[in-house]
Amino acid sequence: MSRWAVILAGGVGSRFWPLSTPKRPKQLLPLITDTPLLADTVARLAELVPAERTLVVTNASLAAAVRELLPALLAENVIAEPRAAGTAPALAWAAAAVARRGRADDVILNVHADWAIGDSVEFRATLARAAVVAEHEQSLVTVGIVPTRPDPGFGYIEPGEAIGGADAEGARRVARFAEKPSRDVAAKMVADGFLWNSGIFVWRADVFLAEVRAHTPEVASALALAESGDLAAFFASVKSISVDEGVLERSSRVLVLPGDFGWDDVGTWAALHRVRARDGAGNATYGDVHSVFSTNNVVHAEAGSVVLYGVDDLVVVTRDGMTLVTTKDRAAELKLLLDALPARVRDRS
Amino acid sequence: MSRWAVILAGGVGSRFWPLSTPKRPKQLLPLITDTPLLADTVARLAELVPAERTLVVTNASLAAAVRELLPALLAENVIAEPRAAGTAPALAWAAAAVARRGRADDVILNVHADWAIGDSVEFRATLARAAVVAEHEQSLVTVGIVPTRPDPGFGYIEPGEAIGGADAEGARRVARFAEKPSRDVAAKMVADGFLWNSGIFVWRADVFLAEVRAHTPEVASALALAESGDLAAFFASVKSISVDEGVLERSSRVLVLPGDFGWDDVGTWAALHRVRARDGAGNATYGDVHSVFSTNNVVHAEAGSVVLYGVDDLVVVTRDGMTLVTTKDRAAELKLLLDALPARVRDRS
Repeated sequence: MSRWAVILAGGVGSRFWPLSTPKRPKQLLPLITDTPLLADTVARLAELVPAERTLVVTNASLAAAVRELLPALLAENVIAEPRAAGTAPALAWAAAAVARRGRADDVILNVHADWAIGDSVEFRATLARAAVVAEHEQSLVTVGIVPTRPDPGFGYIEPGEAIGGADAEGARRVARFAEKPSRDVAAKMVADGFLWNSGIFVWRADVFLAEVRAHTPEVASALALAESGDLAAFFASVKSISVDEGVLERSSRVLVLPGDFGWDDVGTWAALHRVRARDGAGNATYGDVHSVFSTNNVVHAEAGSVVLYGVDDLVVVTRDGMTLVTTKDRAAELKLLLDALPARVRDRS
Repeated sequence: MSRWAVILAGGVGSRFWPLSTPKRPKQLLPLITDTPLLADTVARLAELVPAERTLVVTNASLAAAVRELLPALLAENVIAEPRAAGTAPALAWAAAAVARRGRADDVILNVHADWAIGDSVEFRATLARAAVVAEHEQSLVTVGIVPTRPDPGFGYIEPGEAIGGADAEGARRVARFAEKPSRDVAAKMVADGFLWNSGIFVWRADVFLAEVRAHTPEVASALALAESGDLAAFFASVKSISVDEGVLERSSRVLVLPGDFGWDDVGTWAALHRVRARDGAGNATYGDVHSVFSTNNVVHAEAGSVVLYGVDDLVVVTRDGMTLVTTKDRAAELKLLLDALPARVRDRS
């Protein structure tokens, strides 16, 4: 069997406004290092999976930009969804593509394009262990992140009974998936050993497709179209549904393997302060930024130079023709801002 | 006799960095209204003095920009100082030019190009009264501003005995000029009826030149060169000195006339908050600025749009390729910042 990587890169989020736009979403921006998140993701996986077995699933409108960013990938490895239909159809299509191009029992490492990973070595080691578990247990393996704080912004996984065997690698059954909790409930979950639901999933193509066929009628009825490679007909036929709701919460073959490698989903400008390198005064910056008597700011200078003088805990973002100045607290709720802005300012692409 | 205006427009201050540069100093920037300060100053005087009797004294390096900004002025009315020599030589040259082109007893209204004037009608009325006093009393009339706060950033004038006569208009002798005081001393001066030394001076050309000849050897020895119109030789010959130190503090013909018309010298970005129009949330803005949940900021958006979200009491300045974010407090001491910046950032022109 071979290992494949499937990278979901379909987001069109506006949480990194004014930098992120429908044509230039988060995963195409250099938010954590000085290269775009998607390019970082592919590079991080390269030691585990060669380019010819790396698939990127993205929106049709982004496919050209993705292919330009990743010239080492075959054009056919960039899968252009004709419409956004949630993660279950995307991962089912990818599994069918793997089974068609490789072998039915090939193992797939499914990840998202827009995460921060603090420790790439441990990340790869965990995925390699998950691949062993997925292959030998014929299970859907989720990687559950050991929490570093009671974050109410993530879903949680309650680990259940341990499974035995030399190849189980510490995997456990999933007792339950929990939606994003309140801050108080999150604190209790962290104390009780719950893990963050990272969205990292590892499975054999045939095992996942069997579970979809058994539990996910929203997608199963179109699987023959995926198996025959008819992308347009498949996406026209499926119903939108997430893999969590449509497969993982319905299947009894789900395991969770703990992971601890500085994973973060980087949902807001403020989150960059956690995951970017910081200067001695705690400023996380990109571009030509000069900070004087200024601490703990997040600055993303895509256009020109930014000079900070005597300011703290701000978020400053510049792009051609646009400057945003806000606080790290406010940056977590950009929607209120976007609702208040005139369309000509908000929608500048 | 006729009235003339002399506008000093020679400053090269960096207090409005990054907008102000040696090639584009404060007086050429639209800091208070949406037109440059110098153009506002000329317009404000136009009802008192026609363009043909309005002289602008500026640096040689700025003369072309000044002539472009003020196309209604004769080119010869823009006087290009070959070097900065302080206000005494500049005003002596201007007085000699007035005497040469008009009459020796013509009255000159001397002002600076970079002030805010809240009430232009009262400003003109005060200057017209000062002109009457200057003509009839044959005195050097300074306009002393009625203070609105104990500002330690200005010089102060202590009014002395009243002078009589129907044309005295409330003018008094000057008891003394006081340098910039401490904040405590400023509060006492305001309570004791001291006035701000505005730098607005009104005098007859011949009276001023006689006082220079009597009291200011640094300039007097070169006056013949001014009277013959040899600009280069005059400025090569004079010693640098201010009119306050070189003439007003040495002369016994100095009067002060109170003025109350919203004068401000607008020395810092923070001062713009006092003198610019403000929105309902107290934000003083220039350019395409959008403020949401943000109060009492100063924003000057020369380049592109600026969006503020949940921030207060900041100064945000954008120009092509450069964004400054600081606080109103810090903006009063930009020198500390400029000393800390690399030259390639600080000196971008």
